Amino acid sequence: MRALRGDMPETRPVWFMRQAGRSLPEYRALRVGTEMLDACLTPEIASEITLQPVRRHGVDAAIFFSDIVVPVKLAGVDVRIVAGRGPVIDEPIRTASDVLRLPPLDPAALEPIREAVARTVAELGSTPLIAFGGAPYTLASYLVEGGPSKDQLRARTMMYADPHSWAALLNWCADVTGMFLRAQVEAGASVAQLFDSWVGSLSRRDYQRRVAPHSERAFSALRGLTVPRIHFGVDSAAVLDLMAGMADAVGVDWRLPLDEANERLEGRVPLQGNIDPALLGAPWSTLEAHVLDVLERGAKAPAHVVNLGHGVPPETDPDVLTKIVELVHERG
Amino acid sequence: MRALRGDMPETRPVWFMRQAGRSLPEYRALRVGTEMLDACLTPEIASEITLQPVRRHGVDAAIFFSDIVVPVKLAGVDVRIVAGRGPVIDEPIRTASDVLRLPPLDPAALEPIREAVARTVAELGSTPLIAFGGAPYTLASYLVEGGPSKDQLRARTMMYADPHSWAALLNWCADVTGMFLRAQVEAGASVAQLFDSWVGSLSRRDYQRRVAPHSERAFSALRGLTVPRIHFGVDSAAVLDLMAGMADAVGVDWRLPLDEANERLEGRVPLQGNIDPALLGAPWSTLEAHVLDVLERGAKAPAHVVNLGHGVPPETDPDVLTKIVELVHERG
Repeated sequence: MRALRGDMPETRPVWFMRQAGRSLPEYRALRVGTEMLDACLTPEIASEITLQPVRRHGVDAAIFFSDIVVPVKLAGVDVRIVAGRGPVIDEPIRTASDVLRLPPLDPAALEPIREAVARTVAELGSTPLIAFGGAPYTLASYLVEGGPSKDQLRARTMMYADPHSWAALLNWCADVTGMFLRAQVEAGASVAQLFDSWVGSLSRRDYQRRVAPHSERAFSALRGLTVPRIHFGVDSAAVLDLMAGMADAVGVDWRLPLDEANERLEGRVPLQGNIDPALLGAPWSTLEAHVLDVLERGAKAPAHVVNLGHGVPPETDPDVLTKIVELVHERG
Repeated sequence: MRALRGDMPETRPVWFMRQAGRSLPEYRALRVGTEMLDACLTPEIASEITLQPVRRHGVDAAIFFSDIVVPVKLAGVDVRIVAGRGPVIDEPIRTASDVLRLPPLDPAALEPIREAVARTVAELGSTPLIAFGGAPYTLASYLVEGGPSKDQLRARTMMYADPHSWAALLNWCADVTGMFLRAQVEAGASVAQLFDSWVGSLSRRDYQRRVAPHSERAFSALRGLTVPRIHFGVDSAAVLDLMAGMADAVGVDWRLPLDEANERLEGRVPLQGNIDPALLGAPWSTLEAHVLDVLERGAKAPAHVVNLGHGVPPETDPDVLTKIVELVHERG
């Protein structure tokens, strides 16, 4: 909590994006026979999955186990998660009338989320829980494309071809994801992180004009709540300053070394990141040297929360993650 | 040809990456019943497909119809193209012994390529033909991953975990793609373009140390031949200067405006690009304004070959491409 506010503690905190998930055998065991979105919406399961990596690795934060499309689903949009592929929407949102038909999210539908968060916080004690939500651009890309896509070409076509529907769609996404974040924080989460997985497909100008105001709107759902905000994007080097401007701390992916990120941000923003997930499969001596390099570069920022540059890959050996936590706590 | 050497002609030349392909009904008709790689290796078909967009759109260059994995296939690696997915290798290359077993490419195997190029050049008259090859990193990523992938995670793990096998693999890729480019140029192509589709997943440091020397090696297969070289990468902003340093001209994707690209390259490099393919589906007035903006920004470079920022999407209306050619020839 102190690090995210720019007050660097003596030992750097560490957690891992997607730490709750398929890399853990206890997760795979718990998920047998339960669909992804059902697991997210069953409080005892979502809570238990959130706690698993805290118990196993001794990380300094829990991140709420969920999926960015959960609030979309709770609003009544027909979305499912296909294993190995991601969120799939059989009837994509492509026209003005598709956007107009998007149903508002009823706050009561978020009850399973509140309950899961409350259960989790009760068990976590002093370990903070991070609330989790997808940024409007990433959510809208799934809705327009109907699933994961390479360059979000259809979504970006809509952005240019029908800017009014685009703005309405992104506002809808901002509102549902904002309500999702707010529900988690009101139920006890101490931090809120907004994830923009696809931001790398945008030019800086398009991000600034046609996307960033909607990400601001998502964060503004937290008004009146004093939790620190983390903004993370993949392949975000071109817009890192804009993303940082909306939040207390910014996550950096593996492409941009933290000392360079810190220079771009003029030394003013706490950073989170950015161990390359591709290194998790390398021999320990190689990975260890990389983690120490990340620590050294991150030490130049006003504060540094150690993390990966992207989510834990499913095939990761969980013992490697535990060793990273030990190394960071010892050296960081 | 003049533009690629930095001598800007009065009217800017224009062609489109992936102009030969699924956007054209005459292409789809010709491909009925013929697998992608069979079409690439049948000289009369590959030649006819290469000529189709030149006839239809009046573009200023042809690009040889092929696929980056053609030389991999001709070396004897079992690779196929799955419609809607891309190249698939059922037995991926992951270990030192997998790399050692990669067979050298017999120059005689390139005969169908030489024949297709010779046929094409004979029909093209004064319109130049651009030779086509995949950069070693992109080829290696397909070989290691076994198909397309999001962040080339497995390939990048090999890069760190087994740097010797990685270097041997990229040298092999550089050699087969270099032979492929050289065969096209020797048979009559006037320009050579190296495509690095996945370069955006690398940090600048990793590109510089572990990838760029192999791309240099691919280009070095053209030694003694005086054709201009174009180097194109997707999401390449962080390494644009390094890519430009190996070539006569550099392709820029849609993310980076050409005036900014020109500044980063200190006004010294002819640029190619960078109409956003997502705009091809927007109303003509929107697309026209975008093309004119690209022309204005590109006018600041020493020379500018108009193109898209990535390949033509399959669902593109071909009449839109013809209109862009007319607009560029009229205004450019």
